[in-house]
Amino acid sequence: MGEFDLIERFFKRPARHAALGVGDDCALLQASPGTQLAISSDMLVEGRHFLSTVDPFKLGHKALAVNLSDLAACGARPLAFTLALALPRADAAWAAPFAQGLFALADAHGCELIGGDTTQGPLNICITVFGEVPIVGGRSQALLRSGARAGDELYVSGTLGDARMALEVFRGTLSLPADVFEAARSRMEQPTPRVALGMALRSIATAAIDISDGLLGDLGHILKQSGVGATVQADIAASRVAARLQCSDFAPSQWRDWALAGGDDYELLFCAPASQREAVAAAALASQTAVTRIGQIDAERGLRLLDGAGQALPNTYASFDHFA
Amino acid sequence: MGEFDLIERFFKRPARHAALGVGDDCALLQASPGTQLAISSDMLVEGRHFLSTVDPFKLGHKALAVNLSDLAACGARPLAFTLALALPRADAAWAAPFAQGLFALADAHGCELIGGDTTQGPLNICITVFGEVPIVGGRSQALLRSGARAGDELYVSGTLGDARMALEVFRGTLSLPADVFEAARSRMEQPTPRVALGMALRSIATAAIDISDGLLGDLGHILKQSGVGATVQADIAASRVAARLQCSDFAPSQWRDWALAGGDDYELLFCAPASQREAVAAAALASQTAVTRIGQIDAERGLRLLDGAGQALPNTYASFDHFA
Repeated sequence: MGEFDLIERFFKRPARHAALGVGDDCALLQASPGTQLAISSDMLVEGRHFLSTVDPFKLGHKALAVNLSDLAACGARPLAFTLALALPRADAAWAAPFAQGLFALADAHGCELIGGDTTQGPLNICITVFGEVPIVGGRSQALLRSGARAGDELYVSGTLGDARMALEVFRGTLSLPADVFEAARSRMEQPTPRVALGMALRSIATAAIDISDGLLGDLGHILKQSGVGATVQADIAASRVAARLQCSDFAPSQWRDWALAGGDDYELLFCAPASQREAVAAAALASQTAVTRIGQIDAERGLRLLDGAGQALPNTYASFDHFA
Repeated sequence: MGEFDLIERFFKRPARHAALGVGDDCALLQASPGTQLAISSDMLVEGRHFLSTVDPFKLGHKALAVNLSDLAACGARPLAFTLALALPRADAAWAAPFAQGLFALADAHGCELIGGDTTQGPLNICITVFGEVPIVGGRSQALLRSGARAGDELYVSGTLGDARMALEVFRGTLSLPADVFEAARSRMEQPTPRVALGMALRSIATAAIDISDGLLGDLGHILKQSGVGATVQADIAASRVAARLQCSDFAPSQWRDWALAGGDDYELLFCAPASQREAVAAAALASQTAVTRIGQIDAERGLRLLDGAGQALPNTYASFDHFA
C-alpha cells in the first residue's frame, strides 16, 4: 500500500462545510460572515507525547483532542482540520484504527478533515485545527490569555493530575490500584476537550487557557500576558484529582504536585469577574462540565499559593518544557 | 534554552494581517470579504525531504517554499502560516539561520507566521499555509485539478529535473561539472514557489497542480480528477532541464527521465484553452516566469508520450510515492 492508497482508503471523505476537501493542492474554506477563524497547530511525537504501545484508536482521539482543546480555550466552534502524518511504514493495521479514533471525535464535534500530508519517517502527527469565533459589535468574542483583571475569580474545569499519575505508573515511579490506574490512564490517553464549555464562556470569561503543561505553568502565561498576579488555593485544586476519591495513599503535598504541575490535563483554566459567578455556573451546567473556583486574580504581580488552612506554600512547581 | 525561549527568540514577531499571532492558544485570522481561504499542509522529514547536512537557512526557505507552491497551484495569495517543529534539541545555532531563511521567503510574499508548536523529537518541520482566493460572481477563482477539458493546452513553468539531478549527485549515482551541480543544487535546496504566476493564471487556466512528485505523476492527478487524457511532447519537456544548457553528457532518454519523473521541481503544470494562448503569455510576462507549452489535453483517456520526431515513447515513468 502506497501513500495515495493510504489517503484514499482511510482519510478521504466528502467535504461538508468546506468548499473543497482532501485531494487537491489546497483545501478551500469559507468562514461564515461576521466570524473570525481561530487556528492552532499541535505536533505529537512518539515517546514524547504518547507511548509507542498506545492503542492507535486512542491516539487518533488524542491527536485531535489536544488541538480541539486549543479551540476550546479560545471559545471557538470547531470547523475543520488538516492532518500531516509521518509513519515508519504504510501500515493499514495501524492507520485503520487511528483513523477511526480520529473521526469518532471529529464527528462528535462536527469538525471535518480537509487536507494534509502523509510521508515516511519517525512517527509524528501534526494537526492544524480551524474554528470559528463570532464578532459581535465589531469585537471578537475570542477568549484570550491577556484579558484577566485584578478581582477576577479563577476557575478550572473537570479534574486535574490524573494523566500525570498514569504516566508515573508507566514510568515505574508510582503504583496504583488497578481500577484507579485504568481511570487515570483513560484521562491520559483520551482527554476530553472542553469545547462546549469554552463556547459557553464567551462574553463571561475574561481570559482562558487550556492546561497542557501543568496548571501553574499555564496560569503563568495568563498572568504574564494580562500583567497581573494570582492567589491559588492549592488544596482545592488538589481535591480535583479524580483518583483521590478512590485512593488515599498519598500525602497532601503529592496530590498538590499532580494537580498543580501534572500536565496533559486539557482542562480549561479561566478567569471571570465575581459578578459573573452565576453565569459561570450556568455555562458549566449547559455544557455539562464541572467547574471549580480555585483562586483569584490580584493586582500584585506574582503567584501566591495557600493551603487549606490559608497558610502560604512555597511555589516549587516548574512548568513542563519540551526541551528542559 | 527551553521551548518558550526558542519561540520568543526566533519565531515571535508582531501580527500584521492576523488579528492575533503567536502566543495564545489560537491565532485569529479574518479573511477579506468576498474571498475564500486556501489551506495546505506539508511535512518535511530529515533524510526523506532534505539531507541532514543541508544549510538551515536554505531549509527554512524550502520548508515554506513547498507550502507556498501549493497556494500557487490554487492561484491563492499567501496570507499566513503556522509552523510545528520537532527538534532533537533546542539549538540556537540551528534555529537562528532556519528562522532567517524562513522569514526571508515569508516576507518576500507578505506571509506571516501566526502560530505553531515546538517540541523535542526527530527533526520534523510541518507548515500549514493560508492564502486567499477571490470569489467573483459567486464563483471561486481557485485553480483546481479537476477543471481540464479536451482541447486544452498543457503548460509547465520554469525548469524541470534539476533538483533530481542534484539529488543523484548526492546519492553518488551521477557526476556533474561543479558549476552545473551548484546550479542544480540550488534548485533542489531553494525552490522558487510560482506564486505570482498562479495568481496571474486565475480565470485563464482551467486546471493546475504543482510538480512535487514528478511531471507525469502529477499530471496523472489532473487527468484522473478531470476525467481526460493527454499527449505530452517529451523532448520539449526534456529541453526544460536547465543543466542541459551547460552539459551535454547525457542521452536523450536520461534528460527525459529527469524532466518527466524528476520530482521536487515545484513548478506549475497547468492547462488552458488554446484561445487563451496570449493571456497565458501575458501572465508569464507579468509574473516574470518562463512558461513552456508541452502538450495538450485529449478526450481519449490515458497518457501519450511523443519524442521530437512525433514518434510514440513507452511510458515507463512512475510517480514518486513516499511509501514505495
